[in-house]
Amino acid sequence: MIVVTGASSGLGAALVSLYDSNQQTTFFTGRSAEKLECLNSTLTHSLGYHRCDMAVHSEVAALFEQLPSTPKTIIHCAGSGYFGLLELQSPQAIQTLIANNLNSAINLVQEAVKRYQNEPVTVVMVMSTAALQAKAQESTYCAVKWAVKGLIESVRLELKDKPMKLVAVYPGGMSTEFWPSSGKAINTESFMSAKDAASMIYNAMSAIGNGYVSDITVNRC
Amino acid sequence: MIVVTGASSGLGAALVSLYDSNQQTTFFTGRSAEKLECLNSTLTHSLGYHRCDMAVHSEVAALFEQLPSTPKTIIHCAGSGYFGLLELQSPQAIQTLIANNLNSAINLVQEAVKRYQNEPVTVVMVMSTAALQAKAQESTYCAVKWAVKGLIESVRLELKDKPMKLVAVYPGGMSTEFWPSSGKAINTESFMSAKDAASMIYNAMSAIGNGYVSDITVNRC
Amino acid sequence: MIVVTGASSGLGAALVSLYDSNQQTTFFTGRSAEKLECLNSTLTHSLGYHRCDMAVHSEVAALFEQLPSTPKTIIHCAGSGYFGLLELQSPQAIQTLIANNLNSAINLVQEAVKRYQNEPVTVVMVMSTAALQAKAQESTYCAVKWAVKGLIESVRLELKDKPMKLVAVYPGGMSTEFWPSSGKAINTESFMSAKDAASMIYNAMSAIGNGYVSDITVNRC
Amino acid sequence: MIVVTGASSGLGAALVSLYDSNQQTTFFTGRSAEKLECLNSTLTHSLGYHRCDMAVHSEVAALFEQLPSTPKTIIHCAGSGYFGLLELQSPQAIQTLIANNLNSAINLVQEAVKRYQNEPVTVVMVMSTAALQAKAQESTYCAVKWAVKGLIESVRLELKDKPMKLVAVYPGGMSTEFWPSSGKAINTESFMSAKDAASMIYNAMSAIGNGYVSDITVNRC
Repeated sequence: MIVVTGASSGLGAALVSLYDSNQQTTFFTGRSAEKLECLNSTLTHSLGYHRCDMAVHSEVAALFEQLPSTPKTIIHCAGSGYFGLLELQSPQAIQTLIANNLNSAINLVQEAVKRYQNEPVTVVMVMSTAALQAKAQESTYCAVKWAVKGLIESVRLELKDKPMKLVAVYPGGMSTEFWPSSGKAINTESFMSAKDAASMIYNAMSAIGNGYVSDITVNRC
Repeated sequence: MIVVTGASSGLGAALVSLYDSNQQTTFFTGRSAEKLECLNSTLTHSLGYHRCDMAVHSEVAALFEQLPSTPKTIIHCAGSGYFGLLELQSPQAIQTLIANNLNSAINLVQEAVKRYQNEPVTVVMVMSTAALQAKAQESTYCAVKWAVKGLIESVRLELKDKPMKLVAVYPGGMSTEFWPSSGKAINTESFMSAKDAASMIYNAMSAIGNGYVSDITVNRC
Repeated sequence: MIVVTGASSGLGAALVSLYDSNQQTTFFTGRSAEKLECLNSTLTHSLGYHRCDMAVHSEVAALFEQLPSTPKTIIHCAGSGYFGLLELQSPQAIQTLIANNLNSAINLVQEAVKRYQNEPVTVVMVMSTAALQAKAQESTYCAVKWAVKGLIESVRLELKDKPMKLVAVYPGGMSTEFWPSSGKAINTESFMSAKDAASMIYNAMSAIGNGYVSDITVNRC
Repeated sequence: MIVVTGASSGLGAALVSLYDSNQQTTFFTGRSAEKLECLNSTLTHSLGYHRCDMAVHSEVAALFEQLPSTPKTIIHCAGSGYFGLLELQSPQAIQTLIANNLNSAINLVQEAVKRYQNEPVTVVMVMSTAALQAKAQESTYCAVKWAVKGLIESVRLELKDKPMKLVAVYPGGMSTEFWPSSGKAINTESFMSAKDAASMIYNAMSAIGNGYVSDITVNRC
C-alpha cells in the first residue's frame, strides 16, 4: 500500500493515479473531501482516503490510526506556496505557510518514525528546488523548505542502521493550482505538468539489492 | 544605537554588556522584564529596553515603533533550543521551538527590511552551527535553524544593491541557560561561555572601505 | 547513441551492458583496451570503443573526433579513488587522483560543451556521495569530487537556456575494483553492486514533457 | 611567528604588513623573490622569507624545513585566478589554475598536519566566495575552490580532538593584481582593497577561552 498526502490535487493526485494505473493499492489524504472523493472515483485499486489537515498533529496521528495496513511507501506531497517580497507578506499567510509545510512535514515524519522505524518502510518527502537554494521573492517559502531538508537530513542520522528509509524529492517549477493563488505572477507555460513530474519521480524511485535512490531533483528543461 | 534581541540572558545579554563597555548605546529586548531590568541596571550607555515576545508579529512591530532612533546595527539573538529523538518530542514544544526561532526571525527581518532597507543598517542574525549541518537528536532544532538560513540567504538577494546588510553568525556549543532546559543531557564544561562568544563575534564584525564581514562561525576548540 | 567513459569496469561497464540489453547503441572508452574489447565482445548494439586517458586533453579531443554521430547522452563514469589520512598520502598518488577525477571531468565537459551545447545532448556526470559531504580519510577524494560538483553547477549556469543538459549522479558505496586498490581497508559486502547501481541510475534518468531528472543520489540501504 | 604564503602581492602581502605593524613576527613566501625582498624591506619584525612554488610538493616540504620555529599561525593566501566561459579556456591555463590553487593547498595542509597536528597551530585557508557558490564564467575557478573547501572540511574531521585548528576564510571581490591577468574584464572600482580585506580578516580571527572563529566570509558592500 502506498500512502500519499496532499492528494487533493497537483503532484499528490497525479502520483495516486499513477500508482493506481500500475496496479498498486493506495490510501490517500488531503484537505478537500470533495476532491479526494472525486479522485477516488477514478481509481481501481484504492483502499480509500481520509480527509485531514496535516498541519494538525492530532489529525495526523488519527490518519495513521486509520491506515488499513503497514504502508510500503508514504509519499508526503502536502504543502502550499506563498511568494513575493518579504516586506509585502502578511503575518497570517506566513503562519499558514509554516503550518502547511513545516508543521505538516514534522507531523508526518514523527508519526511515521514512531510507528514504522523498525520496518522496511520508505518515507518520501517531496520538497521543492527551493529547499536547495535561496531565491528572491521566495524568502519564507525557501525558509520552510530548507527547514524540511534540515529535518530530513537530521532524522536520517537518527535512523542510521534502521530499515526505514527517507527519500528526498526536489521538484522545480511545476504548473499546478498552487501558482495562481501564490501571490507571484508567473507564466507557467514552460513548467512541468504534475503528471509528467509524477512519472519521472515514479520511475526514479527504486531500491535494488543493497541500494536505493535516496535523492531526486526534477527540473524544467 | 545597537539593538539586541534575546537580551534577557546568554549571548544577547553578553553582547549588550560588551557594547556598553565599549561606549556604544544600546536598546534591547527579551521576554523577561525582570532580567532586562537587571541587565539595564549594570549599563552606563543604555537607551532602555522593551519587553517583547519576538514570536508575536504585533509585538515586534510595536518594538520597532518604540526605537528611539534608527539603529546602526540590530542583533537578533532571540531563540530557544529543544533536543532529543524526534519520536520523543512533544507537539507543543515543537510549536514553541518554531515560534521562538523561525517566527521571531521572520518578524525581525520583515520589520527591519520594511523600515530600514534604504538605510545603512546592519542586521545580524545569530543562528547556530545547527543551521549548517544535520545533527541526530537535533532534527527540529536543525529544521528551524536551516529555515532561518534559507530566509536570510533569500532576503540577501532581495536586498541586492540596497544599503542594508545582513550578517549571519553561527555559534556552536555555547554554555548558556539554554541547555539545562533543552531536553538533552550534555556536559557543557568544554563549551564556550556566552561572554567569550560575544567577544569573538564583536571583534569579528566589521565593515571597512568597500567590504564587510558577512558570515562568521564560532566553534569550540 | 550513448557514450560512456570509464567503461573498462565497474559502473561504466555495467551501464554499457544495460543500455545494450535495452537495444540502445553505445560507444565507449576506458584506459584498458583489453577490457574494452572484452566488454565489446558481449554486446549486440555496440558502435565500438576508443581507448583513451580522459585526463589528457588531447586524447579527449581525439575521442570526440572519433564519435560516429552526435550522442544523445554522454555518461562520464571515469575516475579513480585514493583514501587514507592526508598525512600518509603520496604526492604522486594525489596527482593521479586529481588527473583521473578533476582533469578528466573538465576535459569531458569542455569538449562536450564546445561541440554540442546547442543540441539536445545530455551530459551525465557520475560523481560520488563524497561530492556532497566531507569525510575523514577521504580528504583529497572529497576535494576532487567537490571540484567536479563546483564545475557542473557553474557550467549549468553557463548553459542556461541552451538545449544541452547536465545531469549529476552521486552514487555512494559501490563494490567495484576501485576499493581493493584504494588504500582504505573496507568490508564492501554491504555495498551496492555496480550492476544494481547501474539499473537504478538507468531507471532514474528520464526527461518527460518540459522536465527532466537533473540530480540523482544512490545510497546503500 | 605568523607564516604567510602568497605574500608577493595582494592579500598575502597586506596581511604580512598588518601583522608586522602589530608587532608580530612573520615569515613569508611567494613566487617572486624580487617582490618578497621588496616587502621585506618595509618590515620591522620580519624573520625572513623563502621563495617557493607552493604547487610543487618538494618545495613546500623545503619551506617547512626552513621555518625558524613552530608557527603560531599559517595563513595560506597563495592562489591564482582564471575566468571566462569554459569552452574558451585553455588546457594549459586550467592546469596552472589547478596547480596554483588545489595542489598548493593540499601541499600546505599536508605538510602542516604532518608536522604540527599535535600542537596548537592554526592553519588559515584563504579561499574565495567562489568556494561557496557556483558562478557562470568561473567554472574551473569554482571547481578548484570547492575542492579546497572539501579538503578543509574533511581534514577538520581527521583533526577532531587535535589541538591544530583549521580556519576557513572566504573573501569576495577584492581588487588585486589578480584580475587584470585573469581573463575576465571587470570594473574593480567597487571591490575591496587587499588592505581593507586584510584588516577585516585580521580583526575577525580570534580564539578566546574554549572557542575560536572558524569561518569568515568577507564581501563587498
